[in-house]
Amino acid sequence: MTTPPVGIIMGSQSDWATMREAATLLEELYIPFEARIVSAHRTPDRLWDYGKTAVDRGLQVIIAGAGGAAHLPGMMASKTRVPVIGVPVQTKALSGVDSLYSILQMPRGFPVATMAIGSAGAANAALMAAGILALQDAELAKRLDDWRDALSASIPEVPHD
Amino acid sequence: MTTPPVGIIMGSQSDWATMREAATLLEELYIPFEARIVSAHRTPDRLWDYGKTAVDRGLQVIIAGAGGAAHLPGMMASKTRVPVIGVPVQTKALSGVDSLYSILQMPRGFPVATMAIGSAGAANAALMAAGILALQDAELAKRLDDWRDALSASIPEVPHD
Amino acid sequence: MTTPPVGIIMGSQSDWATMREAATLLEELYIPFEARIVSAHRTPDRLWDYGKTAVDRGLQVIIAGAGGAAHLPGMMASKTRVPVIGVPVQTKALSGVDSLYSILQMPRGFPVATMAIGSAGAANAALMAAGILALQDAELAKRLDDWRDALSASIPEVPHD
Amino acid sequence: MTTPPVGIIMGSQSDWATMREAATLLEELYIPFEARIVSAHRTPDRLWDYGKTAVDRGLQVIIAGAGGAAHLPGMMASKTRVPVIGVPVQTKALSGVDSLYSILQMPRGFPVATMAIGSAGAANAALMAAGILALQDAELAKRLDDWRDALSASIPEVPHD
Amino acid sequence: MTTPPVGIIMGSQSDWATMREAATLLEELYIPFEARIVSAHRTPDRLWDYGKTAVDRGLQVIIAGAGGAAHLPGMMASKTRVPVIGVPVQTKALSGVDSLYSILQMPRGFPVATMAIGSAGAANAALMAAGILALQDAELAKRLDDWRDALSASIPEVPHD
Amino acid sequence: MTTPPVGIIMGSQSDWATMREAATLLEELYIPFEARIVSAHRTPDRLWDYGKTAVDRGLQVIIAGAGGAAHLPGMMASKTRVPVIGVPVQTKALSGVDSLYSILQMPRGFPVATMAIGSAGAANAALMAAGILALQDAELAKRLDDWRDALSASIPEVPHD
Amino acid sequence: MTTPPVGIIMGSQSDWATMREAATLLEELYIPFEARIVSAHRTPDRLWDYGKTAVDRGLQVIIAGAGGAAHLPGMMASKTRVPVIGVPVQTKALSGVDSLYSILQMPRGFPVATMAIGSAGAANAALMAAGILALQDAELAKRLDDWRDALSASIPEVPHD
Amino acid sequence: MTTPPVGIIMGSQSDWATMREAATLLEELYIPFEARIVSAHRTPDRLWDYGKTAVDRGLQVIIAGAGGAAHLPGMMASKTRVPVIGVPVQTKALSGVDSLYSILQMPRGFPVATMAIGSAGAANAALMAAGILALQDAELAKRLDDWRDALSASIPEVPHD
Repeated sequence: MTTPPVGIIMGSQSDWATMREAATLLEELYIPFEARIVSAHRTPDRLWDYGKTAVDRGLQVIIAGAGGAAHLPGMMASKTRVPVIGVPVQTKALSGVDSLYSILQMPRGFPVATMAIGSAGAANAALMAAGILALQDAELAKRLDDWRDALSASIPEVPHD
Repeated sequence: MTTPPVGIIMGSQSDWATMREAATLLEELYIPFEARIVSAHRTPDRLWDYGKTAVDRGLQVIIAGAGGAAHLPGMMASKTRVPVIGVPVQTKALSGVDSLYSILQMPRGFPVATMAIGSAGAANAALMAAGILALQDAELAKRLDDWRDALSASIPEVPHD
Repeated sequence: MTTPPVGIIMGSQSDWATMREAATLLEELYIPFEARIVSAHRTPDRLWDYGKTAVDRGLQVIIAGAGGAAHLPGMMASKTRVPVIGVPVQTKALSGVDSLYSILQMPRGFPVATMAIGSAGAANAALMAAGILALQDAELAKRLDDWRDALSASIPEVPHD
Repeated sequence: MTTPPVGIIMGSQSDWATMREAATLLEELYIPFEARIVSAHRTPDRLWDYGKTAVDRGLQVIIAGAGGAAHLPGMMASKTRVPVIGVPVQTKALSGVDSLYSILQMPRGFPVATMAIGSAGAANAALMAAGILALQDAELAKRLDDWRDALSASIPEVPHD
Repeated sequence: MTTPPVGIIMGSQSDWATMREAATLLEELYIPFEARIVSAHRTPDRLWDYGKTAVDRGLQVIIAGAGGAAHLPGMMASKTRVPVIGVPVQTKALSGVDSLYSILQMPRGFPVATMAIGSAGAANAALMAAGILALQDAELAKRLDDWRDALSASIPEVPHD
Repeated sequence: MTTPPVGIIMGSQSDWATMREAATLLEELYIPFEARIVSAHRTPDRLWDYGKTAVDRGLQVIIAGAGGAAHLPGMMASKTRVPVIGVPVQTKALSGVDSLYSILQMPRGFPVATMAIGSAGAANAALMAAGILALQDAELAKRLDDWRDALSASIPEVPHD
Repeated sequence: MTTPPVGIIMGSQSDWATMREAATLLEELYIPFEARIVSAHRTPDRLWDYGKTAVDRGLQVIIAGAGGAAHLPGMMASKTRVPVIGVPVQTKALSGVDSLYSILQMPRGFPVATMAIGSAGAANAALMAAGILALQDAELAKRLDDWRDALSASIPEVPHD
Repeated sequence: MTTPPVGIIMGSQSDWATMREAATLLEELYIPFEARIVSAHRTPDRLWDYGKTAVDRGLQVIIAGAGGAAHLPGMMASKTRVPVIGVPVQTKALSGVDSLYSILQMPRGFPVATMAIGSAGAANAALMAAGILALQDAELAKRLDDWRDALSASIPEVPHD
């Protein structure tokens, strides 16, 4: 079984409600992916293994969603040079600002490509992954262009009640 | 003259103090780039042209820095499918939270890979660009691995006064 | 068909729930208007055209509502000298503070007359438009004065349970 | 002595450091103005008089700057239908977020056209005033267009160290 | 008809849901009061009159509740030396932080005794008024002491499910 | 030695730089006061004693300044029914928002009359104390009216460079 | 009756909904505890007694939950050297940021071990208490290790819909 | 060489300016400690080793300071049941709120005892460690009591200019 180009990882089952948006969009663009729960705190060794093997397994992009003290995206970025896209999951008390700061404010050396808080960010993570992969895949580039054109074409001129 | 793989664009001359960090890091990694001032509000047609020609010119990654109502990264993402990395420049009154929200909170359809506020974010934008380009460039991948290894090796065990 | 003096534009159909307040108030004051969906990111060319033709079409005021990374009002202000009034639409994770900062914090050169977050802001955008148009329209000035007087007169002296 | 079309008012002498930017820009555009200190709390009767006579005196736009619990712009908007543009002055403890919320969050009925915090906002207040006055003054419209064109033309293509 | 010692004023009918807490607590302490809607923006002359006559009418404490750009408490404090207690009403988008900053951040010269956001603040406004009046009213002092003792005595030692 | 009507207390010596503003203003109004360091955490028994004896000693108003986790004003309000005015001292990391929330957000039962963050708040605490004492002291009322009139009269009409 | 090693205290009955999480987790780990309502403001003497007797009674850890101007944890830390763990209870207007700042920002001298806002924080308070007690209790250390292992083992590899 | 009971770890050399406060206070209390730089992102394997061996090496408390996306304290808490005390280091753009949220908002299972932002927090981390160790060390308990008494005794009654 070959490794898909995109790995979607998340800190817990509850993040799937958000991260499913990324999966759906990857499916729309016919981009294979795997989805895994990799908790930075509860399964740190799983995180370690995932990061250490990412290059060799052939992963091209890792999409990592987490909430609260969201260490998964940044720790993954510390373990592999495969580009990591981070999705801050919305939280109850702090609306995801905690997730955002934990993912975004990485020190010099370990970038995480941070997306908007919540499901718009999850969908955009998939599109960012598509844009990266399209650099080497002309057919995907075409599908992405078409997806973008279709989105633009879907906007009516006049709002309706 | 060939187009370099990376374009660094910024909203104004004053952003260069921050964005120069990205340039420096690209130079360290021997990644060719161009640097341009492209103001979303003062030179919108320049933004349009830059975005519309990005694919054809062969740009692989666009790094866009801006402050305040920072529309440059998101508008660029709307004009091209080339991956856009956004750097929120720190601001006087709101410390760059205005820049951050203007760059980060993109709607479904147009991702911007947002980095940390300020110069750490600019440096990381270059590293993210390197990670993306390294997917198709084994020698760059090697240089990036070496850069990361050297960073890790530079950390002393014990703090000094 | 003549161009009305006021254009209400918004980033998406979902903003209409908020922006309808502006429309309702313009109707109360007998000010003709048009309502359009102009997405900065999904339909940038529509934005360009709207801005470029605004003066020639005879638009006197543009009311622009958007949420999240709300680039529509500021980009419109960059394309035309017609006064632009911005309405920050309330958002799920950040309550519209993202919309607010993206609209408000414009750099020197391109003002957006920013209103309160949400539907009060949309209603006030219409009243601000009325105040601007009333400078050249004595009858509208009278209607606006009456509207304001009626609002004041409607306030009871004593609260009721 | 005739009333100029624009009145710049501010809550205290210390606000002049910010509001002078508005004055400078009005001068650049040859728009006559008056500058007055009108403290909502220390000189409420002055505020009352200024607001009550604004229409009769022929004021077309009022630019009001204030900091902290910044009540001047909103109270002025309650006293006159002349368009009020509000400038949140940056403050020591809260960076002007207090000024911003006090000016922006007006209830339905009394809009204040809020600008960015600090001196960029003051300059933009003048430009917004110019845009409003230009609706009835073709020569000013020309000067404003030229000012905007000159600003755009002043942006170099490449940043310099 | 004599003026009661306490005036409860609020910016709109909708604030009564919050301010009723103050009324209830004043009733518990047998402190006479009046409740009035006094909108800073919609009925500024009412505000003026209320403030100007407060001393002569014999008001001892004014409790003022308002939301958003909450100018009522501070403007009242500018019109009279009668102590003004401010209650920030919770708001939809900004949770009452806008109300709070508009009430709290008064400049040197015009204090507003700001209470907690929402109904706890409204209840405490009444208790603060009671504490002030108790300085000259030994019987009220006794009732207030009793109320406080009863509150303390009502707290069980052990939580129950 | 008689107890003065006003007690200024503060959490540490470093708060005196702020609270001195209250002392200065009380002196201007010829209101006797005492100034004490009463640390909620370092000298809790001093806090207890100060609060328990406040009524019997004849204190009429307590002004309490503190920073960070600022428990002094609220704990004092729990120990005495003498009105407590709280001054949030500006802090290094959080600008006094921590002080503000710790003082302001008191539960139902124990009001603290919270003033603006920093020295404006300290000055206003003295003026609030004056307003409370003036309810029973016609001469002080006159002095306070004069102080307010002088403040208003000191405001020039026109700003100077 | 012997004193259990852990005391759970809270500011009011309403905090029990949150603090029960701590109790549940202590039960899972077979750690005896007592639960008490100790209001810093309504029952300050109870707070005093609890703190003063903590060492002599043999308490090893105190878990203190409170909301708003949450003075209980910090005041307890001022009364005893027994380690105090603070739990910021989520609040209506400010989502528990007020609770957090009131608990966290303690001055040099009186630490409070602050946990996450809300019920996750309450559960973690119990685990922190367990970690502290485990330093002297090998069997508890074993139970804690097992609890942690079981948590890790419970995480599935793949998310399910 | 025996392992000291306390380990102070920090994300980078620059954190030492803050964390030195912890070291100083441990020295004052005669508590042996080691100080190490352990970067979560730059030296993740060092973090792993430190955490995995903590129990066996005999560490009793780990004090971890970090700034920005501060993952060190929480990741350490995931690797060992030894109590981890977290110190949020103040940062340039976000004043340490990013550090705070990244440290504080840990999910159920992995507590970090979070201290105040900056050097007060570092000092308090040492005192919290002392309080924990004092549970099994009567002489340290005595020294800690004395330190606390001396702090209280050092507070003057009256502020000086």
